[in-house]
Amino acid sequence: MRRFVVVGHEAITTADFSLDDLAGATGRLDILLRCINSAFMLSHGLRKDTELYLSLLGPPGPSKVIRLVGSQMRYLNPDERSTASLVRKALALEFEGQSTPGIYVHVMGLGELLRELRGSLAYLREDGEDLRATELTSDSSFLLSDHKDLTRQEEATVMGLEPKLVSVGPAPLHTDHCITIVHNELDRRGL
Amino acid sequence: MRRFVVVGHEAITTADFSLDDLAGATGRLDILLRCINSAFMLSHGLRKDTELYLSLLGPPGPSKVIRLVGSQMRYLNPDERSTASLVRKALALEFEGQSTPGIYVHVMGLGELLRELRGSLAYLREDGEDLRATELTSDSSFLLSDHKDLTRQEEATVMGLEPKLVSVGPAPLHTDHCITIVHNELDRRGL
Repeated sequence: MRRFVVVGHEAITTADFSLDDLAGATGRLDILLRCINSAFMLSHGLRKDTELYLSLLGPPGPSKVIRLVGSQMRYLNPDERSTASLVRKALALEFEGQSTPGIYVHVMGLGELLRELRGSLAYLREDGEDLRATELTSDSSFLLSDHKDLTRQEEATVMGLEPKLVSVGPAPLHTDHCITIVHNELDRRGL
Repeated sequence: MRRFVVVGHEAITTADFSLDDLAGATGRLDILLRCINSAFMLSHGLRKDTELYLSLLGPPGPSKVIRLVGSQMRYLNPDERSTASLVRKALALEFEGQSTPGIYVHVMGLGELLRELRGSLAYLREDGEDLRATELTSDSSFLLSDHKDLTRQEEATVMGLEPKLVSVGPAPLHTDHCITIVHNELDRRGL
């Protein structure tokens, strides 16, 4: 299983946003929406061997995790707006559980999520080891941040789990682009 | 200069579409919008060494090319809707020229565009040579198609230019994801 965890430092935790202003008043939820695209989309299909965890830490709280499971997913299209509509449905749930097939919402912070993750953990950071030179397994979790770096406290929590530090290349890339490159490396290795 | 050419086989050639339904009645203009993102977006900046040519071949015609120039570009944000708004402005122009800084529209078909392109030409196709094993230069043009393969006639035009055939990996990927992977390879080689 390929798992990606993306930290949305200011990402909104309710459904109280407009599909017409996804980059505006959502705490940059748009970044996480593009990560859904790059985590799951294949030409004419979805990546069924992938799970994505979106850690929403923004207002009004409490923090939530949206878990997307490739093997169960339905109704996912590549465009940002329709993906936002699925995420809004998840955030509108008044209880923890499944909003649409393959999309689950949990009331959970980043620390708890990381402790529950299985598989080897890789933390994507610009000063990490080159992805192409890194030993990877078919059961890996990759941690990425949104447009903000991890806070000092988050960094301490992550480093306590002794992750591999991995860099995808010399240029500073958007989070969704990093996911695409990690997938490509795993595809090439048949993992 | 890095150049990308993306063929939008059914992409709308007028501004007559709604920002609320980009994947619907636009001939999959949404695919091309995501290519704009992956061609230009860096963390906290734009790729100034990149040009993107969107070849719009859909109704009502005539065919148009939208040319985006990284070194001149302004007002580009990563989200799909605001990018669509810039493209719609370009398609609303009643003459050929610049709609906003760095975005130009030309009345032009694919064949004419390809003949005008400079630099070595690489055509991304699933049965091509592995990108990582391909000799590349700092002055390259990469041709990609949208969700449809090139037609037999387009293929003949392209092959007449004797391009390199290049594949980015074993999985069939969306066009914008291919651009991300090509950029990463060029970044790594310092090209």
